[in-house]
Amino acid sequence: MPDPVPHDPRADADAQTPPAERRWVLGVEYDGGNFSGWQRLNRRDEPGRRSEPTVQAAVEHAVSIVAGRSIGVVCAGRTDAGVHAATQVVHFDGPAQRDPRGWVLGTTSNLPPSVCVKWCVPTTDEFHARFSARARRYRYTILNRAIRPALQHQYLSWVRKPLDADAMHQAAQDLLGEHDFSAFRTVHCQAPHARRDLHHIAVTREGDLVTVEVQANAFLHHMVRNIVGSLLLVGQGERTAGWLREVLDGRDRSRAGPTAPSAGLVFIGPRYPAHWQLPAEVTL
Amino acid sequence: MPDPVPHDPRADADAQTPPAERRWVLGVEYDGGNFSGWQRLNRRDEPGRRSEPTVQAAVEHAVSIVAGRSIGVVCAGRTDAGVHAATQVVHFDGPAQRDPRGWVLGTTSNLPPSVCVKWCVPTTDEFHARFSARARRYRYTILNRAIRPALQHQYLSWVRKPLDADAMHQAAQDLLGEHDFSAFRTVHCQAPHARRDLHHIAVTREGDLVTVEVQANAFLHHMVRNIVGSLLLVGQGERTAGWLREVLDGRDRSRAGPTAPSAGLVFIGPRYPAHWQLPAEVTL
Repeated sequence: MPDPVPHDPRADADAQTPPAERRWVLGVEYDGGNFSGWQRLNRRDEPGRRSEPTVQAAVEHAVSIVAGRSIGVVCAGRTDAGVHAATQVVHFDGPAQRDPRGWVLGTTSNLPPSVCVKWCVPTTDEFHARFSARARRYRYTILNRAIRPALQHQYLSWVRKPLDADAMHQAAQDLLGEHDFSAFRTVHCQAPHARRDLHHIAVTREGDLVTVEVQANAFLHHMVRNIVGSLLLVGQGERTAGWLREVLDGRDRSRAGPTAPSAGLVFIGPRYPAHWQLPAEVTL
Repeated sequence: MPDPVPHDPRADADAQTPPAERRWVLGVEYDGGNFSGWQRLNRRDEPGRRSEPTVQAAVEHAVSIVAGRSIGVVCAGRTDAGVHAATQVVHFDGPAQRDPRGWVLGTTSNLPPSVCVKWCVPTTDEFHARFSARARRYRYTILNRAIRPALQHQYLSWVRKPLDADAMHQAAQDLLGEHDFSAFRTVHCQAPHARRDLHHIAVTREGDLVTVEVQANAFLHHMVRNIVGSLLLVGQGERTAGWLREVLDGRDRSRAGPTAPSAGLVFIGPRYPAHWQLPAEVTL
């Protein structure tokens, strides 16, 4: 009697291998106000610092519950304590049989109110959330009025002295292109070199709000906040527009302005080549 | 020897009267997320409710420190627990010799980060923050997407099902003008009658955000949130556009939609006749 089902050599292999793994990509949104940043800082750098919750730990905890085992995630851009993200992109290797909807809903339901997963797409092993990204975009928002903010205070930086947003915008254009950004890098920065390509920077005002939007291929540690801190000196008339170029050329952190506070900063998100077929908001 | 300074009869009066009092007006901004509302609710209505901080108590505490004695304030529109205010207007009677700058800075420095005083102007005894207001404006913001908000979650309501903002806008226009709004009034409302004049209502969409902006001469308790809750039924296709008019005409609270959550609601502010010479943001 012939076998009713022709023999498929792959069936034996399937039966013997454990449930297949695959690489997944998540779009993660968070309010960073109550986190000590994406990744826990190196204790040697800041010995007095208390151990506080990190966004990475929260996401890994939630993804691991859905996966049924411990999962580590890799992000596109680590954010500092208090910095928010409209779309942080992470990848991880996990069970292939779950569908994207399951990851999105299951992970979000295990996250605190300040974090959610907006989308999930399957990808291949060649994709890397950090190394595949070709650009990152940040937005920094300043409330420019006599009195500190109350409404939206979680998402605003505050400058009392009137700011000349046009002067800030003009000065900022000197940063466009590829440069050594050592002048805007914190001493804790561990990047092997300081060359970055700044694609876009714009300072705009709408009523009491002054917004700095900036995109580069990548950023050094504290680079956005150090650029904003320097632009604020120009905006308040304490430095001339040409000074920013001098600071950049000097490559000396001690000559730039102070680091602007974290609350005003949002990581809008990374950008990837279209062939990765990610959602439009992270595609170049 | 003649007196070098001519006698001024007002000098004697000044020396004898206590420091003069006058009426002051403040523009107050707050994030209502951690408050049980502007005014403490009547304990008989909600016997199980915990005693939580109120915005009124915080403002009175701070103003009293600056005044050097206990001060009570009267507001333009009491907001519920969790409702925010871009500009709440209050008046109080306090020492005349302080200048507006002193009230603004001194009061704000004694308030928590979620409350500030934006401006202060002197006025006359005829001004009353509540009775002099001719209009109040509110904005309600809904995040309309599959996943709950994380960023800005303090300021957003969330609806998962797609909303037809145009249908909501059309339905809302039936509420314009003077009507008995009993259908949109909570049973706890203590207003003597339910007639209100709705000046303006607009529902707009920008990406995932659907905004309802509404102005009336005054509002009943929960009126904005009950109108929004009903519009959400229309927006989700669960009720036809004409249904809202039927609900209004029926004057029966049990026929309207559920009360929308407080987080999405901001009291934009009251409006006063121009002769009171208040800042432009609260002038008609």
